[in-house]
Amino acid sequence: MSKPIRFALLGCGTVGGGVAELVARDGTYLARRIGAPLELAHVLVRDLGKVRRDVPASLVTTDAERVLSDPSVDVVVEVMGGEEPAGSYLERALRAGKSVVTANKALLAVRAPSLLAAANEHHADLAFEASVGGAIPIVRALRDHLVSDWVRSLRGIVNGTCNYILTRMRDEGASFTEVLRAAQELGYAEAEPSLDVDGHDAAHKLCVLALLAFGAVVRPDEVPTEGIRAIEPIDLRFAARFGYAIKHLAVGRETRGEGGPLLDLRVHPALVPARAPLASVDGVLNAIALEAEGAGAQVLVGRGAGALPTAVSVVADLVDVARARRAGVSGLLTEGLDVARRPLAPARAQEAIWYLRMRVLDRPGVLAQIAGALGQSSVSIEQMVQEGGSGRRASDSDDDETRVIVMLTHSASERDVRAALTVIDALAFVRAPSLALRVEQ
Amino acid sequence: MSKPIRFALLGCGTVGGGVAELVARDGTYLARRIGAPLELAHVLVRDLGKVRRDVPASLVTTDAERVLSDPSVDVVVEVMGGEEPAGSYLERALRAGKSVVTANKALLAVRAPSLLAAANEHHADLAFEASVGGAIPIVRALRDHLVSDWVRSLRGIVNGTCNYILTRMRDEGASFTEVLRAAQELGYAEAEPSLDVDGHDAAHKLCVLALLAFGAVVRPDEVPTEGIRAIEPIDLRFAARFGYAIKHLAVGRETRGEGGPLLDLRVHPALVPARAPLASVDGVLNAIALEAEGAGAQVLVGRGAGALPTAVSVVADLVDVARARRAGVSGLLTEGLDVARRPLAPARAQEAIWYLRMRVLDRPGVLAQIAGALGQSSVSIEQMVQEGGSGRRASDSDDDETRVIVMLTHSASERDVRAALTVIDALAFVRAPSLALRVEQ
Repeated sequence: MSKPIRFALLGCGTVGGGVAELVARDGTYLARRIGAPLELAHVLVRDLGKVRRDVPASLVTTDAERVLSDPSVDVVVEVMGGEEPAGSYLERALRAGKSVVTANKALLAVRAPSLLAAANEHHADLAFEASVGGAIPIVRALRDHLVSDWVRSLRGIVNGTCNYILTRMRDEGASFTEVLRAAQELGYAEAEPSLDVDGHDAAHKLCVLALLAFGAVVRPDEVPTEGIRAIEPIDLRFAARFGYAIKHLAVGRETRGEGGPLLDLRVHPALVPARAPLASVDGVLNAIALEAEGAGAQVLVGRGAGALPTAVSVVADLVDVARARRAGVSGLLTEGLDVARRPLAPARAQEAIWYLRMRVLDRPGVLAQIAGALGQSSVSIEQMVQEGGSGRRASDSDDDETRVIVMLTHSASERDVRAALTVIDALAFVRAPSLALRVEQ
Repeated sequence: MSKPIRFALLGCGTVGGGVAELVARDGTYLARRIGAPLELAHVLVRDLGKVRRDVPASLVTTDAERVLSDPSVDVVVEVMGGEEPAGSYLERALRAGKSVVTANKALLAVRAPSLLAAANEHHADLAFEASVGGAIPIVRALRDHLVSDWVRSLRGIVNGTCNYILTRMRDEGASFTEVLRAAQELGYAEAEPSLDVDGHDAAHKLCVLALLAFGAVVRPDEVPTEGIRAIEPIDLRFAARFGYAIKHLAVGRETRGEGGPLLDLRVHPALVPARAPLASVDGVLNAIALEAEGAGAQVLVGRGAGALPTAVSVVADLVDVARARRAGVSGLLTEGLDVARRPLAPARAQEAIWYLRMRVLDRPGVLAQIAGALGQSSVSIEQMVQEGGSGRRASDSDDDETRVIVMLTHSASERDVRAALTVIDALAFVRAPSLALRVEQ
């Protein structure tokens, strides 16, 4: 057996602790698969005071310089999160020829291209299975398995917090605010939930997926992004009545533009048919559905977060890059991967079937005015349901004078739908901003 | 870029043609990912007369010796199928230090251990993604991604023919024989269907999965195997009424014996809850559901067969082993993989909830005798439905005098259930052999 492969852990929170635990538990087997033992060299933390299982206290440090300047470190495993200082640390490690394993989607979303370039230039490996989909092997599926295939579209449930909240809202009829609070108490949502519930985390992950699936370099701020705050229990109920589930999705697909293929990328809640594979992916599970030219339809489902599920993906990468390091052939994982800027589809021009929900005063002629506004924007109604009004309540949060109008449209562009809703929401009898959600077939 | 990696194709049917097509189409990109171009060296076939797209006629030969003795061949890609001569060819290739890619589950099911040993001894790679689940990346998921995890159980829909037939039987209410004939006409079933519909192909695949998931060397003849010939449309209908789908499954799980852990492996049709992920996997799709200690639940769904779906998996392996070959580090893919004989659980002792279906003459006292026989074997009934008799027909194939009795039991061992059915099927009023299917929760 070769001399040990030494790795440094940057960060030792939930995931880092899981990595240390798995490496300590399975060290002998991992050494056989690598051809060399793994040796934990340093653990960089912010707070020396915390007790850490599976980590000798002598290895724990707050001194990044000491870790990054150690020439005996072969692999840097980054599970600290955040764009900086993680990004600088990893650039420096790669430039020193060290291989890098990272779970950091926020960093990769903005700096994957420069990190990949550094890895290639310095013959180091850059592996990031844990950055999307937790325990789901989606990175190696896209990077290695579909190497001779073309991904035409992908739809992912990639934020476990959103999926957990929507699932409980559906099952309990509870409001977003109530379920968010419960999720925060259970540790399924952060105290500052915006990154998750406003869709930014999913947009980061979509950027990573787009890189591998479409070879596309995209910044998160280029991805039209919506969260789930506007969803109400009544929407989940109406969606079910129409034969759909509501899921928060990251969507990427190739579409045709006048000058050639365009990439349509978006993050938003959407209606998916009740029988579609994604519809039954509930709670904290994540899933990614792909449509590839050769392989056809694929769906991968698994735990999207959590200490061990994420650590399993990190350790799989660690074994890959450590084995390559031992064999003296680092840098092959992502060598030759084509990534480039690609033209994006104008989001508001994309057509879809829409679910629309409006809250109006119970007055004669309301529906005619709404239908008129939709018609003026060329949005035609496929089916419509009204609830409430005339002394009945559509939902607990409504009064006896409020009607909820819900409809599915025929195919229409977002531009036209938003234009119609701007007109509608300015009408005197409209009581609250209307909601528009795409149907993803 | 390095000198070309030369590969030989053994077999050029549906899958082999797909491999040649993908390599021809994506050669430039694959060369960048490998660091060397792929070069087709030989195509071994049985019939020189057939026209083959994407394959130069000068490379096609029926002379195995010429292919196997060529020292310039780096990789042998075997897509001919069958245990022999494929097995001898691959042993020989590995002993000559060539890497091997194979889609041959029938061969791997019986000779994977000796092929793995030959690969390790001669520092060659043995890759077999396409042997199970077609386009589903299950081999790399088990081999690479779950390297630091322990699989507790797996359930797979791994035979597309069975799944296609059961799906059409459910949707059309048609008999096994009718749907088999239609499937044969469409090319979804072989003229000699036994390998598929009697479960042998699934047993081969389960042996491959058991090797990777449990490190277990198992022969197909050790796997209790049942096919789908005994399933009738009425069973699919009753299963749905009880809240289940019927799927043909390959099942593997760790269970506890008195002397330590045992491996419970089986292939049979079973009832799965309608909301379980496998229940909605229809038609020619395959799926594998895993339960792993760290990663938790995972489900991978995709095309289980077909030229391009299978070829995508073969080419992924080809790129892996060609890249290693180019870098001079072949043999790492499966190095250190622990495989050994493992004690198997006695199949008939395993407990399950059972679906039982009996056909009896419409006479007084019948149910009492059946209940008595079950009770004597300690099998207790959880719920029961009778149809037909008294001039009504339970199904098209029954007469007015036949009652169909269907029940779900409480948990009972297969031994006890079979003992009870032996007694029941000997009763004078029983018109046809009874059916017993497990419920897989």
